[in-house]
Amino acid sequence: MIRAVVWGENVHEKRSQVVADLYPEGMHTCIAKALQDGGIQATTATLQDPEHGLPQARLDDTDVLIWWGHAAHGDVDNAVVERVADAVYGGMGLILLHSAHFSKIFKKLMGTPCNLTWREAGERERLWVTSRHHPIVRGLPDHFELEQEEMYGEPFGVPEPLETVFVSWFQGGEVFRSGLTYRRGAGNIFYFRPGHETYPTYYDGNVQKVLVNAVHWAANPEQRIVDVHAAPNIDVAQALEPITARGPKLHAEGEDGFR
Amino acid sequence: MIRAVVWGENVHEKRSQVVADLYPEGMHTCIAKALQDGGIQATTATLQDPEHGLPQARLDDTDVLIWWGHAAHGDVDNAVVERVADAVYGGMGLILLHSAHFSKIFKKLMGTPCNLTWREAGERERLWVTSRHHPIVRGLPDHFELEQEEMYGEPFGVPEPLETVFVSWFQGGEVFRSGLTYRRGAGNIFYFRPGHETYPTYYDGNVQKVLVNAVHWAANPEQRIVDVHAAPNIDVAQALEPITARGPKLHAEGEDGFR
Amino acid sequence: MIRAVVWGENVHEKRSQVVADLYPEGMHTCIAKALQDGGIQATTATLQDPEHGLPQARLDDTDVLIWWGHAAHGDVDNAVVERVADAVYGGMGLILLHSAHFSKIFKKLMGTPCNLTWREAGERERLWVTSRHHPIVRGLPDHFELEQEEMYGEPFGVPEPLETVFVSWFQGGEVFRSGLTYRRGAGNIFYFRPGHETYPTYYDGNVQKVLVNAVHWAANPEQRIVDVHAAPNIDVAQALEPITARGPKLHAEGEDGFR
Amino acid sequence: MIRAVVWGENVHEKRSQVVADLYPEGMHTCIAKALQDGGIQATTATLQDPEHGLPQARLDDTDVLIWWGHAAHGDVDNAVVERVADAVYGGMGLILLHSAHFSKIFKKLMGTPCNLTWREAGERERLWVTSRHHPIVRGLPDHFELEQEEMYGEPFGVPEPLETVFVSWFQGGEVFRSGLTYRRGAGNIFYFRPGHETYPTYYDGNVQKVLVNAVHWAANPEQRIVDVHAAPNIDVAQALEPITARGPKLHAEGEDGFR
Repeated sequence: MIRAVVWGENVHEKRSQVVADLYPEGMHTCIAKALQDGGIQATTATLQDPEHGLPQARLDDTDVLIWWGHAAHGDVDNAVVERVADAVYGGMGLILLHSAHFSKIFKKLMGTPCNLTWREAGERERLWVTSRHHPIVRGLPDHFELEQEEMYGEPFGVPEPLETVFVSWFQGGEVFRSGLTYRRGAGNIFYFRPGHETYPTYYDGNVQKVLVNAVHWAANPEQRIVDVHAAPNIDVAQALEPITARGPKLHAEGEDGFR
Repeated sequence: MIRAVVWGENVHEKRSQVVADLYPEGMHTCIAKALQDGGIQATTATLQDPEHGLPQARLDDTDVLIWWGHAAHGDVDNAVVERVADAVYGGMGLILLHSAHFSKIFKKLMGTPCNLTWREAGERERLWVTSRHHPIVRGLPDHFELEQEEMYGEPFGVPEPLETVFVSWFQGGEVFRSGLTYRRGAGNIFYFRPGHETYPTYYDGNVQKVLVNAVHWAANPEQRIVDVHAAPNIDVAQALEPITARGPKLHAEGEDGFR
Repeated sequence: MIRAVVWGENVHEKRSQVVADLYPEGMHTCIAKALQDGGIQATTATLQDPEHGLPQARLDDTDVLIWWGHAAHGDVDNAVVERVADAVYGGMGLILLHSAHFSKIFKKLMGTPCNLTWREAGERERLWVTSRHHPIVRGLPDHFELEQEEMYGEPFGVPEPLETVFVSWFQGGEVFRSGLTYRRGAGNIFYFRPGHETYPTYYDGNVQKVLVNAVHWAANPEQRIVDVHAAPNIDVAQALEPITARGPKLHAEGEDGFR
Repeated sequence: MIRAVVWGENVHEKRSQVVADLYPEGMHTCIAKALQDGGIQATTATLQDPEHGLPQARLDDTDVLIWWGHAAHGDVDNAVVERVADAVYGGMGLILLHSAHFSKIFKKLMGTPCNLTWREAGERERLWVTSRHHPIVRGLPDHFELEQEEMYGEPFGVPEPLETVFVSWFQGGEVFRSGLTYRRGAGNIFYFRPGHETYPTYYDGNVQKVLVNAVHWAANPEQRIVDVHAAPNIDVAQALEPITARGPKLHAEGEDGFR
């Protein structure tokens, strides 16, 4: 059974009555329940937990991490960000939702500003599938609608994705590449746009299907790579083809390289 | 005329007699001369210069930055790394050479460990073109050799590139994707493997051709994007299609978003 | 000076009064004039010309071919399609416009059905730039509008592109990846969506800018590769590293391979 | 249980004593047995069977087709090639082995010449993993060797892949991108280089692991897309957002488009 952790920032659920009414147990709990209904073993973690609920031992036992953040990106500890990144390089899947486009972990893994245009007006969003029968769109029609969503508009400051899975149409005239896949190290990454906290997006059946599918797609059953930063010096004596060392050298045999 | 800056760490040129003998004016100067011979306006900067020779004003006037570093990646100031990254997002080209795979700027832009295996044995490297007639291989044969080079071996811890331009064969039995293109924001990025400081690689005619070609390929004549992190809030009143704001809101009209 | 040939099917210009009134000299002539104004040496060719105006000698002297077709894809001679494909593999640029998505040459180069949904209702299209400062969007704003266009909708049956340059918003609720780059052999390929023959699309200043930019982007100044299908048998005696032939063989030394 | 069909040309097994001795039941049977041992329901089909063993009904019941051909690419019926291509677009996985690089079906799906250099000298090949923990390399070390193989060398005339999974080192000095993934329509495609018929490659444990992994990776459990070439005209009355038809038209409402 795939083990997912849904990480919620859990800030607006406390500060905003609107959000608290919509998601009384937090957005993370709503999402985790949807994953459980989809046959996934899902638990939650929040910003307020010790180590944000993501100590090393828990990441070691997590197949896929789902990340939702918005108001408190800056409060996420850099050490946890590095830890999550290393887990991704080693094979943990990572799904970033909506305003997580500006999370430290997404910006780190993309290597770009991850910026966009936006408007909070409760306008209609329609998501179109651009990669038919991709594992992430299993069981979905060619498009589906969210009657009220925040708008995110292009240009979206991310690298060219491996695959573009969804493109969104917005009532106010914008478009957005709403579902994008990436790979970083051995980790599968999926960015999925919908999910503004003032709307009931994570109760939507199609959105829930996407999340369940994405967790299955992102999970990597192989054992986690341990030292994801290793850069081993291969001795001449161990060379796969017999060679003799020639020319001047900087390094002593077996020495570590510079970093 | 394209304006290039060749950044050299300039450490082993001072510390190692072998390197000093090979590159008495520094590797950066050797590379800059090759670019000049190729019709490019090339100057140099080094780690030891104030602000590592890369103040904002200079980056503003640089079309393509070439980066060679090895022993002192950790000594590069983080503020300069951020500045270079922002210039890349805004449209400056960036070419990373050899051991710059572990530079802060490359790791930041890739979002991955950028690790590899290596062996310093002066073995033969043969670079094969895998993207015929790519602008970066202009005037080159389908393969060329470097009689003595350091080996770098796969797996190379980088994201899937936009294009694989070269793959290297090594005498000791390894292979490496030696020429890779990426785009980050408006900036073109090229990683090129050869160039260990104890060998005369940057005097090689084919290597020099690659560098000249890569500078031409990476240069973006468009005016630099200024605020590369901007994420503008688009007012409902300015929406391209007439819409009426609906539903609950977190943000006041025109407010900045969270970061 | 870049040499472009604008190929026009030139059928609806003869059969439809609407199209004839809009493009009295043919759509191809309108496009060629825009390219000429952009500093490109542009001539035209049509379906009705001998060999569709594309004999081998002309392709040999063409840097970039622009292709518009719609009603008569099936009338294009297969030999000409093969000839154009070989020119692309050898380094000729190819730009496919609008209904050329169903042309023989595009389907051949993509290896996919290239299908989509469509509606001819003169609705508003808005093209959004998704790759800022890409050479193809030089001088363009982040979006531009065409007040009346035919709708093309996702899913678009093409392979993942090298780069997604434009995404279109349509008034009726659809989206489309409107500007896509590919490389096939040494040839740069750009598909650009707008251009239904009953609307004045090719008189639009932004569209003309895209076409001029795309021709510059697609042109490959290297000498054309001659035998694009060559699969040479490398003699053991010519091997770059000394080897001795071992084991059983099917082929005599120097023999051609099977096809 | 995944249903695979292993298609073998089955020509050299009849004509060459060497091949017949190595693969007395045919290469396809050897491969099918390896898949069966890996928990896959695998059957075989050959060129000599009626409709090459690939009637429509069988393709409808096939999750993944494995293709090996060499001497008789030209004898494969074009109608069968189209049928296989349509099955791929609809979601059938396809794995192409070794000399299948020149098969009609691979060239059709790639849209390129698929040429390479080659040498039949029984030299050593070493495959390096370039995408760690990719599903296709599950359980494999970072590299493995085949003591005798035919050499295939770069440049390989294929489009940039979705992912490069293996790169090969050859004793005679060449390299080759030996494992490449693509997607065409809903179909996952994997090209895998090794497998010259005069060597015992398909008895190799690592090669068998790759094949089993690749079948699992390529299988798409979604129901096959039926009309893979459909390009539906969306009525104005059915538009998702209310619009009014404007401007001149070529097509009557509900009419089929041109092809």
